[in-house]
Amino acid sequence: MPEEQDEEQDEVYIIRTITEQAPGLMTGLRVGPGDDAAVLDDGTVVTVDAMVEGVHWDERLSPADVGWKLAAVNASDVAACGARPTWAVLTASLPAPLDRAWVRDFAEGLGAGCRRFGLSLIGGDTTGSTGPRALSLTAAGALVGPPLLRTGARPGDDLWVSGTLGDADAGLRGVGGPSGETLLGVLRRPDPPVRLGPGLAEAGLAHAAMDLSDGLARDLPRLCAASKLGARIDPALLPASDALRAAVDPLPHQAGGGEDYQLLFAAPAANRAAILALGEALGVRLTRVGALGAAGGPVEAVLVGRGWPKPWDHFEADVDSGEAGPANR
Amino acid sequence: MPEEQDEEQDEVYIIRTITEQAPGLMTGLRVGPGDDAAVLDDGTVVTVDAMVEGVHWDERLSPADVGWKLAAVNASDVAACGARPTWAVLTASLPAPLDRAWVRDFAEGLGAGCRRFGLSLIGGDTTGSTGPRALSLTAAGALVGPPLLRTGARPGDDLWVSGTLGDADAGLRGVGGPSGETLLGVLRRPDPPVRLGPGLAEAGLAHAAMDLSDGLARDLPRLCAASKLGARIDPALLPASDALRAAVDPLPHQAGGGEDYQLLFAAPAANRAAILALGEALGVRLTRVGALGAAGGPVEAVLVGRGWPKPWDHFEADVDSGEAGPANR
Repeated sequence: MPEEQDEEQDEVYIIRTITEQAPGLMTGLRVGPGDDAAVLDDGTVVTVDAMVEGVHWDERLSPADVGWKLAAVNASDVAACGARPTWAVLTASLPAPLDRAWVRDFAEGLGAGCRRFGLSLIGGDTTGSTGPRALSLTAAGALVGPPLLRTGARPGDDLWVSGTLGDADAGLRGVGGPSGETLLGVLRRPDPPVRLGPGLAEAGLAHAAMDLSDGLARDLPRLCAASKLGARIDPALLPASDALRAAVDPLPHQAGGGEDYQLLFAAPAANRAAILALGEALGVRLTRVGALGAAGGPVEAVLVGRGWPKPWDHFEADVDSGEAGPANR
Repeated sequence: MPEEQDEEQDEVYIIRTITEQAPGLMTGLRVGPGDDAAVLDDGTVVTVDAMVEGVHWDERLSPADVGWKLAAVNASDVAACGARPTWAVLTASLPAPLDRAWVRDFAEGLGAGCRRFGLSLIGGDTTGSTGPRALSLTAAGALVGPPLLRTGARPGDDLWVSGTLGDADAGLRGVGGPSGETLLGVLRRPDPPVRLGPGLAEAGLAHAAMDLSDGLARDLPRLCAASKLGARIDPALLPASDALRAAVDPLPHQAGGGEDYQLLFAAPAANRAAILALGEALGVRLTRVGALGAAGGPVEAVLVGRGWPKPWDHFEADVDSGEAGPANR
């Protein structure tokens, strides 16, 4: 945890420093830093996410998994703002001599991911490196309505999540048994519901949204802070896959772990039926898990009747078997 | 040279593999891979360029120089397509523990470069790394007329270059004397004429353009191949700075070395006066250095009366003093 906190502080420092050193530099923006993606005045949504070997993935992901995931995480950010993913450009820094089998496998997964999530891969840059493989994808999207932001939640809104939570985290921590490969599969090939965000935005059904990349225990407080509202979640309502329930107590993974890339959103109670109908039309499971608090109340995310599970670092030691996982690097 | 060739072959392999593995993936494009930037159907121009420590820069560039240069090289690609630079997003992978003084200096240079070249820095992602500092900037632009491509040159067109050539390469190779710091200054802080490409495009003055990032000996054959025409350059006409002429025979650096980020463009003879007037209005020196050949002739770039200087690798040993420079990594 200390290293994860350091990394968060480092990121905050870098962003603040660049913003301070460059006063007046961020122009042409409807929405600047702090949301899932930037929203330009012309309705283009832009995000960028990097993946570095040893930091964001280890040998449990094949090169094709890495390619897929790079597309997934970026498309997820775009769609969480209520935009339809459109195009992407790639940077790949790869050590010499080039491992051509790695490139072929990576390209297959990246292509499959881009097709799945609606991204046209329009260009890129490749360089050598003396270090680990480092990848970065910039992805854009087109708004289909007002953007869905973290700041838009209103007092009394329902809180919803898509899909099921916790599989990717359980896979990462080596939760075993017959479910092990199924859970790891979600870590390897996350499948964010990229039509949901634009669908909610187009129909004007939701007030706020963000994708769950770091887990509910980390991400929900960010939505609360941005919207200046508290939130109460009923842990019994959090959706879990059969595989996860069969293997382990799901809550620590549902709330404490990330990488599911499901959507968390806030919407008025009047829209419940329309939201469920949209989920059905898109084939996306939607679950109401709690509600936002009152204006002027405490800005705090509460798990009713329980404390929040401690959020884990990506590469912390395996909590279930006690085996040491890859070090936090 | 062999390593540089390997790297070029690696890049070609990666692009081909991704394109092949992802058939039908590049959609919504007016101009795809192979030009300075991609051009989307909606007139947005997008490019990405990465810089890795030890590959693209060494200790002769300060962190602020690196930030400036990252903005410059990307804005140069956008402007070479005839587009006005608009926005950029950054990826920075930096080793732990974070060197905060490095971040501050880098941010200062990046901010200055973005302002200089008209880029709004709208977002980014920062990650840790176990390797060298790795930076990537995705930059976009807005077309102001038909895009200026490498493919558009016509038989008999004049060939023009902006600014002066060779300073950055001479600085890189440690050409010394009183000019040394001046020449290194161009390597550290390239100043691409980013209003020239859009100016030419808006007025419809040029048929083709590209920026000179790898040097005339490498870049001109690319324009020839794309336009399927030969070219003849008069070496005596190539513009050189006083600092370069005072220090050394300029031709090897003008033609064999890159990193000047000046514009090479092809235009009909009828536009000469208008082109010179545009250069004057923008404060950009423009020099006519040769011409394109006839249709159906040999597709070859000829330096009249001379062979092309051998293009150097970025980090080849210092050719003037015989001192070993940083190794090609």
